[in-house]
Amino acid sequence: MPEPIRFHFDFLSPFGYFASLRIDDIAARHGRTADWHPMLIGVAVLKVMGLPPVGSIPLKGDYVRRDAERYVRRHAVPITLPLREPDTSPLPAGRLFAWLKRHHPEAAKPVARDVFHAYWVDRADIADPALLAGIAARHGLDRETVQAAIASPEAASLLRAAVDESLAQGVFGSPFVIVDGEPFFGAEKLELVEEWLATGGW
Amino acid sequence: MPEPIRFHFDFLSPFGYFASLRIDDIAARHGRTADWHPMLIGVAVLKVMGLPPVGSIPLKGDYVRRDAERYVRRHAVPITLPLREPDTSPLPAGRLFAWLKRHHPEAAKPVARDVFHAYWVDRADIADPALLAGIAARHGLDRETVQAAIASPEAASLLRAAVDESLAQGVFGSPFVIVDGEPFFGAEKLELVEEWLATGGW
Repeated sequence: MPEPIRFHFDFLSPFGYFASLRIDDIAARHGRTADWHPMLIGVAVLKVMGLPPVGSIPLKGDYVRRDAERYVRRHAVPITLPLREPDTSPLPAGRLFAWLKRHHPEAAKPVARDVFHAYWVDRADIADPALLAGIAARHGLDRETVQAAIASPEAASLLRAAVDESLAQGVFGSPFVIVDGEPFFGAEKLELVEEWLATGGW
Repeated sequence: MPEPIRFHFDFLSPFGYFASLRIDDIAARHGRTADWHPMLIGVAVLKVMGLPPVGSIPLKGDYVRRDAERYVRRHAVPITLPLREPDTSPLPAGRLFAWLKRHHPEAAKPVARDVFHAYWVDRADIADPALLAGIAARHGLDRETVQAAIASPEAASLLRAAVDESLAQGVFGSPFVIVDGEPFFGAEKLELVEEWLATGGW
């Protein structure tokens, strides 16, 4: 069985959301699975890179918004427009995801998909532990256990470890896919990811 | 006759070079022409954006080099590796191009293609006016006229105007293609440019 492909995402990244809708199907078409990894672009990566948030960069910010809206049309992405800019903390959802991967791995992706949906379609505040616990409860988890987990030092530590490990792998954006060590940044690299999986690379 | 598509490039940008090898064929396949526009990323755009050169950005610099080398293999780009980092002034070649567009438009693209080749394949110093004049001479221009043109205030002013006009259009990278007002940044958007040309957009 070949290695899973690595899928790195930030819940607050629109392109990360877009890729989350496709990555498992892409992997499955090539006999793979996708291992999801929480990343923190604004909180961690941009500090390492020494960059401001992309939306605030002259010229590029406007382009990226337009590019995202174009992607939404081309792929008929379920989303509520206008696009949100990062407007809440990604930490509670990231901690929950890291904790689920450790303790309830079968629930991690289903919960993450619902968190993405809550943020990008329902425009919910995904920093709210009660909202996150409600999502987890739909997947069979106990609400109070989940709320305690989100606030636990263990979850914070698991997320920090995931972010550090992703940085060590060179991850600097969302989405960021790694196939057998080969890195691909951006939702519009997914066609290249497919080609790489199909051909073994070039 | 539909409008030409706009192709913005910096001679020192590897992805700009890659796109220069394809853009006219792409346009022609859809009954268009490509209007080439000189841009200055390091000299002008990055100052507007407040960013350092991409090659110097932690994590992203390494990725972009790897991504460029991967593009070279996938598209069998004629190039001498390792990739050059910007290591000379793009101004003389940009001024020559802007001046040719005004005074010898039929020679502008052929000369630009040879300048790209000189930089990326022959590893020549394209800031050398004598080298540029030699290239122009191969396309029927008088060497001394060209050397004088490169040093002229008119050429500097024409390049400055081209850069200002491109900034006003939102151009912030190389390559940057605009189809009927729709902007596309990056060599790996060329497939999307083709789709947009073929379908009228989405």
